[in-house]
Amino acid sequence: MLVEQDQTLIRALQECMIATNHCLNECLAEDESNMMIDCIRLDRECMEFCSNLEQAIIRQSPYAKELAELCLKVCEACAQECQKHDHKHCQYCAEICLQCMEACKTYLKK
Amino acid sequence: MLVEQDQTLIRALQECMIATNHCLNECLAEDESNMMIDCIRLDRECMEFCSNLEQAIIRQSPYAKELAELCLKVCEACAQECQKHDHKHCQYCAEICLQCMEACKTYLKK
Amino acid sequence: MLVEQDQTLIRALQECMIATNHCLNECLAEDESNMMIDCIRLDRECMEFCSNLEQAIIRQSPYAKELAELCLKVCEACAQECQKHDHKHCQYCAEICLQCMEACKTYLKK
Amino acid sequence: MLVEQDQTLIRALQECMIATNHCLNECLAEDESNMMIDCIRLDRECMEFCSNLEQAIIRQSPYAKELAELCLKVCEACAQECQKHDHKHCQYCAEICLQCMEACKTYLKK
Repeated sequence: MLVEQDQTLIRALQECMIATNHCLNECLAEDESNMMIDCIRLDRECMEFCSNLEQAIIRQSPYAKELAELCLKVCEACAQECQKHDHKHCQYCAEICLQCMEACKTYLKK
Repeated sequence: MLVEQDQTLIRALQECMIATNHCLNECLAEDESNMMIDCIRLDRECMEFCSNLEQAIIRQSPYAKELAELCLKVCEACAQECQKHDHKHCQYCAEICLQCMEACKTYLKK
Repeated sequence: MLVEQDQTLIRALQECMIATNHCLNECLAEDESNMMIDCIRLDRECMEFCSNLEQAIIRQSPYAKELAELCLKVCEACAQECQKHDHKHCQYCAEICLQCMEACKTYLKK
Repeated sequence: MLVEQDQTLIRALQECMIATNHCLNECLAEDESNMMIDCIRLDRECMEFCSNLEQAIIRQSPYAKELAELCLKVCEACAQECQKHDHKHCQYCAEICLQCMEACKTYLKK
């Protein structure tokens, strides 16, 4: 029903939604959570755009690629912000966002 | 297309999504944002359930009433948490959540 | 909390979600519903992108404008398809999609 | 970050979203698509509730179980409708919906 490339991207998006939500929740609980505002906001953005793209791919939307380009951009911004922080959850989230970006790029090439 | 009661509930849900998101953003920026974690989390829950219910009503889902009962419960929890805090955005959010609860109750009676 | 232009676009998106969902439901019930497949699919796409954009505006997402550009494109495709059909619900849906496009354009200029 | 039971349910929900969307698209293309209206509508409901639940689990929402109860009910209705039709996509969709129901039940027991 869905081609392998779609399935691969869906898995990457799901990993990314889990990692960004985890990072968001952990950032909220950090002592200096005020310093984590940008990270929290970008985690939330990233999670929402991944969710929108997941749904578009499942619907086999003719606009999925355009949404994937936007999602890729949001993942990149989230990864860059997370990389600034030493917290384990931020470093992990950055890594998963980079993987999701790669999955978006592969999807866009097909 | 949508009956008046549906339109009324949709407007209440929309107000509630705007108020909870505003409260969430302002809580993140407060000095003692660690103390606002429960408020931030319930704002987010409330916004998501309002969004889910709005979509269900627009779809004319046969399960909209069951979702409205759950949304009502989430609005109530959010209102109760917000009422604990003196911040203007929390007090305002609590008020709007209470109005949304009333809109859900009216919808459930029809 | 939200500026007037955001509120105006939210109202237009909501109208558009209601109209596209109504058109989708009515198309399904038409005698020649096979001929309405493209209309049904674009109604669904349009409704989903309007919903995604509504949430992005409420979140005050830094990516709302880029999503608005994509939503505008989907509304245009939906309006063009609906205009091909004489059904009252298609003609009405086309009209509302055109209004939503205008609201997106105004929002993008700000 | 997410416990194994959450991950298992997320995979089941994803399978179910893919199957219901496939069934919906195929039903639209059937010769007698008018006879498939109930199936199309329930496919759409099922997909939306699975998506709502997936997001709630990823958020680690305190209301995820209540939403899982509702999702279980929608999956059941979709499975029952799909079972009435001989189309391969309907029979497959029914099977996947039943699996998703089991995943919801396991999740609710934890």
